[in-house]
Amino acid sequence: MRPLTPADLNPAILNVQYAVRGELAIKAEEFRDKLQSPGHNLPFTKVISSNIGNPQQKGLDQAPITFTRQVAALMEYPPLIELVSGKWPQDVIDRAKELQTEIGSIGAYSHSKGVPLIRKHVAKFIEERDGYPSDPEDIFLTAGASAGVSLLLNVLITPPTTGILIPIPQYPLYTATLAQFSGIPLPYHLSEPNGWSTSLREIEAALAKAEKEGIKPRALVVINPGNPTGALLDVPTMEALVKLCEEHSLVLLADEVYQTNLHRPTDHPFHSFKQVVRRLGSPVPLVSFHSISKGVKGECGRRGGYFEATNLSNEVRALLYKMPGDASYPLWKSETDTIHAALAHRTQLMAARLNALPGVSCVDSPGALYLYPKLELPDKAVEEAERLGKSPDTLYALELLHETGICVVPGSGFGQKEGEHHYRLTCLCPGVEEYVGALENFHRKFLKKYE
Amino acid sequence: MRPLTPADLNPAILNVQYAVRGELAIKAEEFRDKLQSPGHNLPFTKVISSNIGNPQQKGLDQAPITFTRQVAALMEYPPLIELVSGKWPQDVIDRAKELQTEIGSIGAYSHSKGVPLIRKHVAKFIEERDGYPSDPEDIFLTAGASAGVSLLLNVLITPPTTGILIPIPQYPLYTATLAQFSGIPLPYHLSEPNGWSTSLREIEAALAKAEKEGIKPRALVVINPGNPTGALLDVPTMEALVKLCEEHSLVLLADEVYQTNLHRPTDHPFHSFKQVVRRLGSPVPLVSFHSISKGVKGECGRRGGYFEATNLSNEVRALLYKMPGDASYPLWKSETDTIHAALAHRTQLMAARLNALPGVSCVDSPGALYLYPKLELPDKAVEEAERLGKSPDTLYALELLHETGICVVPGSGFGQKEGEHHYRLTCLCPGVEEYVGALENFHRKFLKKYE
Repeated sequence: MRPLTPADLNPAILNVQYAVRGELAIKAEEFRDKLQSPGHNLPFTKVISSNIGNPQQKGLDQAPITFTRQVAALMEYPPLIELVSGKWPQDVIDRAKELQTEIGSIGAYSHSKGVPLIRKHVAKFIEERDGYPSDPEDIFLTAGASAGVSLLLNVLITPPTTGILIPIPQYPLYTATLAQFSGIPLPYHLSEPNGWSTSLREIEAALAKAEKEGIKPRALVVINPGNPTGALLDVPTMEALVKLCEEHSLVLLADEVYQTNLHRPTDHPFHSFKQVVRRLGSPVPLVSFHSISKGVKGECGRRGGYFEATNLSNEVRALLYKMPGDASYPLWKSETDTIHAALAHRTQLMAARLNALPGVSCVDSPGALYLYPKLELPDKAVEEAERLGKSPDTLYALELLHETGICVVPGSGFGQKEGEHHYRLTCLCPGVEEYVGALENFHRKFLKKYE
Repeated sequence: MRPLTPADLNPAILNVQYAVRGELAIKAEEFRDKLQSPGHNLPFTKVISSNIGNPQQKGLDQAPITFTRQVAALMEYPPLIELVSGKWPQDVIDRAKELQTEIGSIGAYSHSKGVPLIRKHVAKFIEERDGYPSDPEDIFLTAGASAGVSLLLNVLITPPTTGILIPIPQYPLYTATLAQFSGIPLPYHLSEPNGWSTSLREIEAALAKAEKEGIKPRALVVINPGNPTGALLDVPTMEALVKLCEEHSLVLLADEVYQTNLHRPTDHPFHSFKQVVRRLGSPVPLVSFHSISKGVKGECGRRGGYFEATNLSNEVRALLYKMPGDASYPLWKSETDTIHAALAHRTQLMAARLNALPGVSCVDSPGALYLYPKLELPDKAVEEAERLGKSPDTLYALELLHETGICVVPGSGFGQKEGEHHYRLTCLCPGVEEYVGALENFHRKFLKKYE
């Protein structure tokens, strides 16, 4: 066996640099440990982490917002409502009930784009902020803003020629993610003498340089308010940036996670790019990122955020939706051995009954949550599937769904040998008799239809 | 402006297919909506989602484990402890207190690899399962098993020649993630006549084919218990697979998320690859994935999991650790306008005092959480940094940390013009006077040292 070395790994990963968690942060941890030991001889008594704004960390201990956390506690453990009724504010209880009705258990997979009610709430917030409509279908909930940025850069970058315009200085998330996805950073410098303002000339120079080098610029990253600069864009600059994106067919990636962190809102108000794009009636594809880690929430450990995709075609939006970032696994859960036994029994029973059907053979699986029966399908069914441009097991599964409401996964999604047909079904359904009965009836009708 | 079309996007993304959430799932949603309208004319009264094992979803409504959720509720809102004392079991309260002491607020960023105490608990679980030691430093907590698989495949794949051996049938996470990172799937077929068993001959055939085509095999994916097959590997097969990985220098990726979903544990027990690798004394790099979505937890909506990296060098392990998947943002949080005002005041005060220092100029930022002062450093400091192979602002930041315990981020991590030096500090610290005083003293001493 040859040992695995960094040279065996993706070279793009070796380029990932993440200053916020680099040498200094590691050293700081060492000092924090050293301070515990008596006679440590260090010239200070505590380490102050000014590298990461992490207000709820130990030592800072900023309290989270009570309302948010009380609602969250009720979502974790719904029976708690009885205990706190009359003790916690009624609006906490009302909000939890509204969410529980909509979501059910927070332990369940939700829609890939996020819970519809929460996306509606986000759209309402955006409408009130901007004075322009926001469509909940344009909102994607993400695990923090970083997850959204990572998804968008992954989709927008076609290695090795895609360039992304990024401000300098920038938050290193951008250079790190560009390295990860082999995108080329096209840096434009912010003007420190003008309070870290954004200069169109700098961006145009970066675009000209890219063209000379055969790099295709695909998107412009703007961080507003700035990180690490804290600068705020004014409206004329924002309008000019939008027009520049139009001219060069760039996607505008607006990192607006600090939008409520304003120290002098009267003379330095925040304007969203969404508002500017709408007011100009611009067709520029815009993705605006926001986060629960910033502003008045500060819930960085919770990993929550959204992005709003404006002026993206349905086709492009659908590609964001089917990415595996929000992958959805099948699963099983049981609190006791009783449930284990019940599932084992149900699996065996279902396998036996499926095996009794003509043209069905099914391995009686000893583990996991599924059966994966093999189907011998009539030639006519195979021909009909070919005519429709579908795999035969997709035809079978579609008809099953249409007839019975039972949604399974065709074997073609998992991979199978040429000419074979399977489908996967879970053994989690309630009411085995009704469920398997429906499967049996459907199967017999299907065979008859295509015999 | 040329509109953005799928042709403009990363072609790897267009190849991402995700059967579990494909055409069928979308159709099922349509039917679910249609069933709400009277006179819908559908031949069934409810849609049953057998495509995704999602036990806590509406309609199945399996209750989550009470212990877990009571602890989670207390982590959300620690003052709740007073309300539930004497009403909830003492071990719930003890566990919550232990975690609160260790973690502090769950709204804070944690260690990139996950909370140390939880990694210790995971290592203990593995030791008890296998009878071999497990090092908490080998444990990485992830947002579900998918996030871990995605990270590993991203690191292991160097496009365009890296091949990954995957079973057929397989859970489509693997083909989707391979498409995303431009890895080449090297399929090996499981043997349905032998209860979906794994055949060494099939894998060797796939390796031979890869070699002929100039593809470099880097890893072997094994799903045990199988998805979608539910099959369980026996020990002789596992040993043979480990030896095969040794022979071909492959990383073994063991998807073991269904390890507690055993229907007939007496004749089909689960054995972990970790146990087999240790018993053989094998040097094979092994990554084993687990998840809170499966087994007796079923908390799929919560996105929790871990991977254990066995036989990976410290160097390679460090690369996993610095990936931006666990990216850490600076942030600020405030519950009221009072806090906004306090931050604004503190930022202004700090900027004024930094600007009063010789060789420091600092834009007084109107937003976000930071100041980003520029430093004019003495030539001798620049020379000393060169001698040490560091950027001058890294030298400055390191000495600042050593002297004062204040950890900031050097400007070189964000990007800056040639010859300029900056650092970023947050304005979140408690005790401005002491903090800024320490910065001022250090700066003056630094200038004197290198003058």
